[in-house]
Amino acid sequence: MTEQTAGIQSDDILSDADRRGLYRVLLSRRDVRGQFLPDAVPDDALARVLTAAHYAPSVGFMQPWSFILVRSPEVRGRIKTAFEKANAEAAVMFEGDKQATYRSLKLEGILEAPVNICVTCDRDRVGPVVLGRTHIPTMDLYSTVCAVENLWLAARAEGLGLGWVSIISEPALKDILGLPERVVPVAYLCIGKVSHFFAQPELETRGWRKRLRLAELVTLDRWQGDHDAALGLELDRTQAMAEDGELV
Amino acid sequence: MTEQTAGIQSDDILSDADRRGLYRVLLSRRDVRGQFLPDAVPDDALARVLTAAHYAPSVGFMQPWSFILVRSPEVRGRIKTAFEKANAEAAVMFEGDKQATYRSLKLEGILEAPVNICVTCDRDRVGPVVLGRTHIPTMDLYSTVCAVENLWLAARAEGLGLGWVSIISEPALKDILGLPERVVPVAYLCIGKVSHFFAQPELETRGWRKRLRLAELVTLDRWQGDHDAALGLELDRTQAMAEDGELV
Repeated sequence: MTEQTAGIQSDDILSDADRRGLYRVLLSRRDVRGQFLPDAVPDDALARVLTAAHYAPSVGFMQPWSFILVRSPEVRGRIKTAFEKANAEAAVMFEGDKQATYRSLKLEGILEAPVNICVTCDRDRVGPVVLGRTHIPTMDLYSTVCAVENLWLAARAEGLGLGWVSIISEPALKDILGLPERVVPVAYLCIGKVSHFFAQPELETRGWRKRLRLAELVTLDRWQGDHDAALGLELDRTQAMAEDGELV
Repeated sequence: MTEQTAGIQSDDILSDADRRGLYRVLLSRRDVRGQFLPDAVPDDALARVLTAAHYAPSVGFMQPWSFILVRSPEVRGRIKTAFEKANAEAAVMFEGDKQATYRSLKLEGILEAPVNICVTCDRDRVGPVVLGRTHIPTMDLYSTVCAVENLWLAARAEGLGLGWVSIISEPALKDILGLPERVVPVAYLCIGKVSHFFAQPELETRGWRKRLRLAELVTLDRWQGDHDAALGLELDRTQAMAEDGELV
């Protein structure tokens, strides 16, 4: 970069095709639990997926994340056991039909997926005072979640399924992976090639919950404020396109 | 959809061009504070950006988010005042040169951006028991952050700058926007057309912090575990490509 051009992106850095690509990836991303294949994930694809995560936004450019690739069958076995304990505790919290449905759902692919990744947040990576975290102390955790979402989208673009396992006790996870007190295991992810991706979220097709109407969630200037009628029509039209898999 | 094809994505739903588009958007995304233009954001672009957020993953398909579009100058004035109070408190937490640099940074575009959006999380949207939130209670907040990251990427793809204002007191924000106790203001965003996007994060070019070497953040099977040498080489190669703006 010369002194003159340093710092500014050229206007044509993104095309309509790039925008279309982003939306296609966003809409085809799924939470995958049951379709993993045993094939190894190539290092170049894994490196791109991790790089996508590393280029997420972070509060104060803190980059608080680390990535633990869990390949050891022994470690994964312990994670699976921790999941099973938590899942048994969780199931009984649901009542009647909901509990029956819950018990019929496959909710993780810890042993089937060829790679598991724990994405952590080191809350003390840059010392106690962080630009942008002074008033909302959870901002570094939120930055780490942005990294997880980038990783998830990149995985989908690489044809890799990803499932986020959240039915697990955080202290158990910290103990198994040897995390110090200051490090939070923000996400435990299962990643790998898959036989197929579902067209819709499984919890939607299984009748767990419906997709909400976006137009009802958008208000003006305050909680439960007015709806903008013209924008509402556009939101309905755009959501209908999203259900068909293309936004542009 | 017929009964037979219901539920499965076709294998060619994503192309190499789509993957390239995703990576280009990911790498050109910036936290924008100072380059906003007063031009209105067209409804169709705003609808796509909000739809991208709405198609984020959510724990138990909870979709806990709402979007408050803040256009009122009066409301924005109150938000700006709350920012200024928090920012004055924040500045004195940094020492010496760091404080001088902090004070020289522009950290929000609340009044300049044509639209502000507060992305909220309704923690009680589906009742107290949520599939996947039983053991990690912050999962619904994390889902909302995934929506923010989707929104941010879509904004960049639409040529819209976005800045996340986190130097503000959460109680002040809740009071100004009339949020009930159970609703958390996860992100306050400024969005609009911009004169230009910077090539690198401002905090990087201003010397606040450096981009970390990703290969050092990736370990095997446990915290500070071994590094995979072959993957490490691939990570270094991929990160160098990311600095040049293309991953594939």
